[in-house]
Amino acid sequence: MGKAIDIAIVGAGPAGMTAALYAKRKALKVRIFDSGAAGGQTALAVWVENYLGFGRIKGFDLTQKMAKHLEDFDIEIEEAAEVTGISKKGKGFELDINNGEERVEAKAVVLATGSKHKMLNVPGEKEFYGKGVSYCATCDGPAFKGKRVAVIGAGNSGANASLFFAGISSKVFLIEFDEKPAFDAIYSKHVKEAGVEMFLGKQVVAIEGKKMVSGLKLKGRAGGKDESLAVDGVFVYIGMTPRNGLAKKLGLKLDEKGFVKANGLGESSQPGIFIAGDATGELAQVVVAAGSGAIAATTVFEFVKGLR
Amino acid sequence: MGKAIDIAIVGAGPAGMTAALYAKRKALKVRIFDSGAAGGQTALAVWVENYLGFGRIKGFDLTQKMAKHLEDFDIEIEEAAEVTGISKKGKGFELDINNGEERVEAKAVVLATGSKHKMLNVPGEKEFYGKGVSYCATCDGPAFKGKRVAVIGAGNSGANASLFFAGISSKVFLIEFDEKPAFDAIYSKHVKEAGVEMFLGKQVVAIEGKKMVSGLKLKGRAGGKDESLAVDGVFVYIGMTPRNGLAKKLGLKLDEKGFVKANGLGESSQPGIFIAGDATGELAQVVVAAGSGAIAATTVFEFVKGLR
Repeated sequence: MGKAIDIAIVGAGPAGMTAALYAKRKALKVRIFDSGAAGGQTALAVWVENYLGFGRIKGFDLTQKMAKHLEDFDIEIEEAAEVTGISKKGKGFELDINNGEERVEAKAVVLATGSKHKMLNVPGEKEFYGKGVSYCATCDGPAFKGKRVAVIGAGNSGANASLFFAGISSKVFLIEFDEKPAFDAIYSKHVKEAGVEMFLGKQVVAIEGKKMVSGLKLKGRAGGKDESLAVDGVFVYIGMTPRNGLAKKLGLKLDEKGFVKANGLGESSQPGIFIAGDATGELAQVVVAAGSGAIAATTVFEFVKGLR
Repeated sequence: MGKAIDIAIVGAGPAGMTAALYAKRKALKVRIFDSGAAGGQTALAVWVENYLGFGRIKGFDLTQKMAKHLEDFDIEIEEAAEVTGISKKGKGFELDINNGEERVEAKAVVLATGSKHKMLNVPGEKEFYGKGVSYCATCDGPAFKGKRVAVIGAGNSGANASLFFAGISSKVFLIEFDEKPAFDAIYSKHVKEAGVEMFLGKQVVAIEGKKMVSGLKLKGRAGGKDESLAVDGVFVYIGMTPRNGLAKKLGLKLDEKGFVKANGLGESSQPGIFIAGDATGELAQVVVAAGSGAIAATTVFEFVKGLR
C-alpha cells in the first residue's frame, strides 16, 4: 500500500467536501471524486436560507464558495470522475474510476454519495422546479406564507410538511395516490385539526402555471373527471432514493429504505468504509451533512493511524 | 400555556443559533437567550478554517455573520440574559431569566449551553491564547507545520493530537502531570513509533514568549530543577467541562464526564428538553454543533405538534 492514499471520498456535496477539508487539515492524503460537478443536491437548490452564516444564498453560489474553500486548502475536486467500483485490496481498497480510466488505492473510503428525491414525473414538474415545485418544506416552505400549497404524498414526511404549512399557509392540501394514508396514526388527528384537506386515491397528472405554479391537475384512481386545484406551491414527498449502488456492491448493511447504516462516528458495517451525509438517511440538510462529514473524517484519521 | 412560546433556546453559539433559525422557519414561537454575547466559544476562536464555505475567517467575524443571519430572519438574540432556572410548569416549562428579571413559559427547551476547555491556569496561558496557545489541534493545528509543539495532557485526545502533529511538525512533546499516561494502550505503540517525546510526572508552570509562544517551563512532580522546552505551540488537552448546570438541576441523564446524554435526534432523558452542540459531548466543531442544532429543532417541531 505504499502508493495508497489515506482516504478516497466519493461524492463532492457538503458532506464529502467537509470530510475532505477535515482530512486534509489532518495531513491525510486525500482525493475526492464526483461523477458530476461539485456541490451535490445543494448546487441544484434555488435558494438556501438555513446554512448558518450565509443568510439567503443561491444553492449554486453556496457550493461555489464551498468548492473555493477546498481550493484554498489545496484540495482538487475531481469532477466527472465516477467511482465505478470499489474492491478490497490488501488492507485497503482499490477504486475504479470511470470504468478503468484509473485505479486508486486508498486505506479508507468515505461514501458521501447522497440521495435524491423521488419525482412524480409529470408535465410541469421539472419546468417549475424552484418556481413553486419543491421537495423540501424545511428548505423552501417559509416562502409560502399566506399561500395555497399542495403536499403530495401522505407518508410521515408529507404529513409533517402539511402540518408545517397549516401553520403558515392559507390553504393546505395533502394528496395521496393510495386509498389510505401511509402516515402513523398519530398524524390523523393532527392533520385533521390543522384543517389540512386530504385527497385520497388521487394521482397528480400535471403541474400547471405560467411563470410560477398556479395549480395542479388530479385524476381519480377510480376514474371520473380530472379535477383542478389552484395552488401556489407543490411539495413532493413521495420518498427519497439513497444513492447506494457502491454500498450495495460492497455488501454494507442498509436500512429498510436502502440508506446505509452508520453509527454516530460515520462507521459503516465494514471496517475502512465510512459514510457521511444524506446517504445515511439522516436529516437531509446542508449543515447536517457537513457536520457528519467532519465526524467521519475525524474517525478516518483514527482508523488510518491504527487506533480503530 | 396560552402565553407560552413554543421553544426556548439556552445558549447562542452555532448550535443554539441554528436551532433558532430552523425553529423560526418552521413558524414556531422561539426565543434564544445567552448569558453573555452571541457566538459561544466560536466567537473566541482566533481563526476558523473549517466551517465549509467561509475559508479562513476570524471566529468573531464568523459569529457576527451567524448573528446577522438570525437578524435577517427576525430572530433577536437576547444577550446578557442568563437562564438561571428551569422548572416544570403544566405541560411545559418555566424559565427564570437573570434570577427573577423575567419568567418565560415554553413548551419545549433546547439546551445549547456548550462546554469549555479546562485551562492550565499558568502564567502566559491567557496572554498567548491564539498566539501559540490553543485547545484544539483540529482547529488550529495545521498552522504548526514544521514547527515545535507541546501537547499537554496524555489522555486519548492529547495522544490523538500528538499523532496529528507528528505528521506535520518538526518536533512533538507530550507532557503529562501524572506518572502514567491515561490514554488507551493502543496509543502507546503509535505515539512511540511516531517519535513523540513523552514527559511524565511533569507540571507546566509557565508558558513563555514575546509576541508569540517560544517555550514553556516544566517542573518535576518529584522535585528537581525546572526545565525549559523551546516550542512554538502549546496545545492543552486536559479535558473539557460541559456547561451542565441547568441539565443537572433538571435531573437529566449525564455521561461519566458530565456531558448530557442525547439520542441522535437531540432528545434528552426528559420529554420536552432537547440538547444540541458541545454539551452533548459530540465532536466539538462549529459545523457539527450547527448540524445538531438543526436536528434538535426539527425534533422539537414534531414534539410541539404533538407527534412525539
